[in-house]
Amino acid sequence: MRIETLCTGDELLTGLTADTNSRFFQTQLLERLGLQVRRSTVVGDVRDDIVEALQTISTRADVLLVSGGLGPTADDFTAECAAIAASAPLEERPEVVAHITERIARRGFKLTANNLRQAMVPRGAEVVLNPVGSAPMFGLTLGRCRCYFVPGVPREYRHLVEHEVLPRLIKAAPPHEARVLRLLKTIGLPESHLDEKVAPLALKHPKVVFGFRTELPENHLKLLGLGVDEAQARAVVAAAEADCRAVLGAHVFAVDQETMASVVLSRLEARKETLALAESLTGGRVASQLTAVPGASKVLLGAAVTYGGGAKQRWAQVPAGLLSAHGAVSAEVAQAMAAGVREELQATWGVATTGLAGPTGDGRQAVGTVFVAVAGPSSGRAERHLFTIGGRDGVQALAAHAALDLLRRTLQTGEEGSP
Amino acid sequence: MRIETLCTGDELLTGLTADTNSRFFQTQLLERLGLQVRRSTVVGDVRDDIVEALQTISTRADVLLVSGGLGPTADDFTAECAAIAASAPLEERPEVVAHITERIARRGFKLTANNLRQAMVPRGAEVVLNPVGSAPMFGLTLGRCRCYFVPGVPREYRHLVEHEVLPRLIKAAPPHEARVLRLLKTIGLPESHLDEKVAPLALKHPKVVFGFRTELPENHLKLLGLGVDEAQARAVVAAAEADCRAVLGAHVFAVDQETMASVVLSRLEARKETLALAESLTGGRVASQLTAVPGASKVLLGAAVTYGGGAKQRWAQVPAGLLSAHGAVSAEVAQAMAAGVREELQATWGVATTGLAGPTGDGRQAVGTVFVAVAGPSSGRAERHLFTIGGRDGVQALAAHAALDLLRRTLQTGEEGSP
Repeated sequence: MRIETLCTGDELLTGLTADTNSRFFQTQLLERLGLQVRRSTVVGDVRDDIVEALQTISTRADVLLVSGGLGPTADDFTAECAAIAASAPLEERPEVVAHITERIARRGFKLTANNLRQAMVPRGAEVVLNPVGSAPMFGLTLGRCRCYFVPGVPREYRHLVEHEVLPRLIKAAPPHEARVLRLLKTIGLPESHLDEKVAPLALKHPKVVFGFRTELPENHLKLLGLGVDEAQARAVVAAAEADCRAVLGAHVFAVDQETMASVVLSRLEARKETLALAESLTGGRVASQLTAVPGASKVLLGAAVTYGGGAKQRWAQVPAGLLSAHGAVSAEVAQAMAAGVREELQATWGVATTGLAGPTGDGRQAVGTVFVAVAGPSSGRAERHLFTIGGRDGVQALAAHAALDLLRRTLQTGEEGSP
Repeated sequence: MRIETLCTGDELLTGLTADTNSRFFQTQLLERLGLQVRRSTVVGDVRDDIVEALQTISTRADVLLVSGGLGPTADDFTAECAAIAASAPLEERPEVVAHITERIARRGFKLTANNLRQAMVPRGAEVVLNPVGSAPMFGLTLGRCRCYFVPGVPREYRHLVEHEVLPRLIKAAPPHEARVLRLLKTIGLPESHLDEKVAPLALKHPKVVFGFRTELPENHLKLLGLGVDEAQARAVVAAAEADCRAVLGAHVFAVDQETMASVVLSRLEARKETLALAESLTGGRVASQLTAVPGASKVLLGAAVTYGGGAKQRWAQVPAGLLSAHGAVSAEVAQAMAAGVREELQATWGVATTGLAGPTGDGRQAVGTVFVAVAGPSSGRAERHLFTIGGRDGVQALAAHAALDLLRRTLQTGEEGSP
């Protein structure tokens, strides 16, 4: 089944509005039918473009989801374009008129002439009343392609796609092939090395589609397993995953929806251990990433964003002498911050960051110089990095990631285990 | 000039990745050339689909921006498809080989065979080395259409679009009418009210295009002024801005690239005042937003992410009795945190957040209940909010925004001026 989408609206072509609708449909389609949209097209509020796109797409697709342009105003004319593409007249549907009249009365507004434009649909269309808005959804067959027209307002789009469009697709083409997706997230391997390591495995697993994606500094390996049923799809993915893990080892730090932050938190929670942070150049990013995870409060006791020297001394117990002897951007100070904040909040682990995010440096070290440190029950360690990409934002993001990864590796190797 | 875009990559069709690249290009195109993309197409990693899209689009567009599929791995074959569409062989370009070899050596990695795939471009293409990545950009004419191929990695895409693609478009079709864009950012007004207030002004300023954009909780008013030259465009925008400010008053908190964080920082810097934060439910978000702004260290002394009760007592001087009497989520505790952290770091201002981000509540107050507080030289105040949208992430984001806005309003009204 070849499925395409067509979104209409100038606001989607001028950068004003992000198209969150299509992502919703794509995710649902993959999860519920194991299918992928084949092509997605966006056109502006231009009649000729909409008609041409409807005609072209309907010659090659089996299903087309059209969204937008069903509102009451003069720049909404998707129904009119559908009628032209179908060579059918527009007709006023009494059940839609009744629905709109009732909705508007209920909200205490007066019915205007353009409200009723929303009751006009191409003759022969299947009409579905919209329980969360006035514009109806309608279905129409163009050539060999079944087209579903839904409003672009996200709340209405999501409701109709979930409750009306997807059930029709499942009925039309029950997924006869099961698909199971597995994402392995790796760190410390450039994409080309990841590819080189796993490429030979792809040949060995013909029922698994291998894919790659970069989310700096992470590289993700996507394994899509195909089978006659879900058990078989799961089995082929599990076999491929085992082979990939054998060559990738500790570079794999998370799977699927897990993040570096969630992995670190769940390991600490399982060990019944706690964490305190002292952040300088990352300015609260490590804490934000951890606290974005529900239940973070079970592990994270607190974080000190010690931008000034005073905060470093007061909240992370860094001796003034150490700051003047080594400078704030040093392994010694990073290590002292981690140990100090750990002591301060009586946590199992302390993690610290210090460095130069830029754009201006301190005249001694290069912008992008970063020290991350971890302090644990028995000892601690610091690592030096030089991040040269992405400007201030990039340096802060990479430093936050490096700090969490240092803790993750420390927990993994056990060189800093619980007492 | 008819401009289209073609993005390639399965990840854009499965809901895995949001296409932030196209919005960047669209916004730049509108702001710098006053032009709108006419159609935008997304296809997966399918050779036939990419070739067909290149062939079809090049029959109707003057300019096509193609992104994605230029990486080193086996599922990257956009250059190969471009060669097929152009009926030209792929050739290895020595300058790209040198660039890639040098980049990889600098990072201490070994050159792999697939790295060199990125040096293969269709014969006759204009090659532009990529200063922020290995895959080059290349330009190629298909039929009457000039096509620019750029990597899909957002950092590389943005750099090449800004520094290479847009300048070529401006050279090819210099905007014959000058355009000046002004963005007024408002807070505390629903979009429909903003529209109602400024709609009458649009009629009075026919040479200014009015537009709206919502970035929760902010609403932005976009004024695009048209003139025969830049001076005239500036003048019409300035007149429209003055009229809009007269009806919007203090709802306008920032313009253009300014953010809530940058506005607060620059006001404090101008007053030579300092800031300390105590964040509970926002978990470091307020600090991250402030420290994302270069030079934040002149104003922000530090932030205490006081997730646990111990951290609240130790770093924000909140008496244990207050916590047990009122609960951590209370106006009293918010106020005590703001005053305590201000005292702790000897800052001019203290700002604090506490609340329930969810997903689970405390059994006493609703999830989404938030208190933000500010403490200054003469006194302080706290505000209660109930945020019900966007889940945990939404509550944290809206609470961080509310905390900064409370400080901004306090600075503005002067009810908490310097001593």
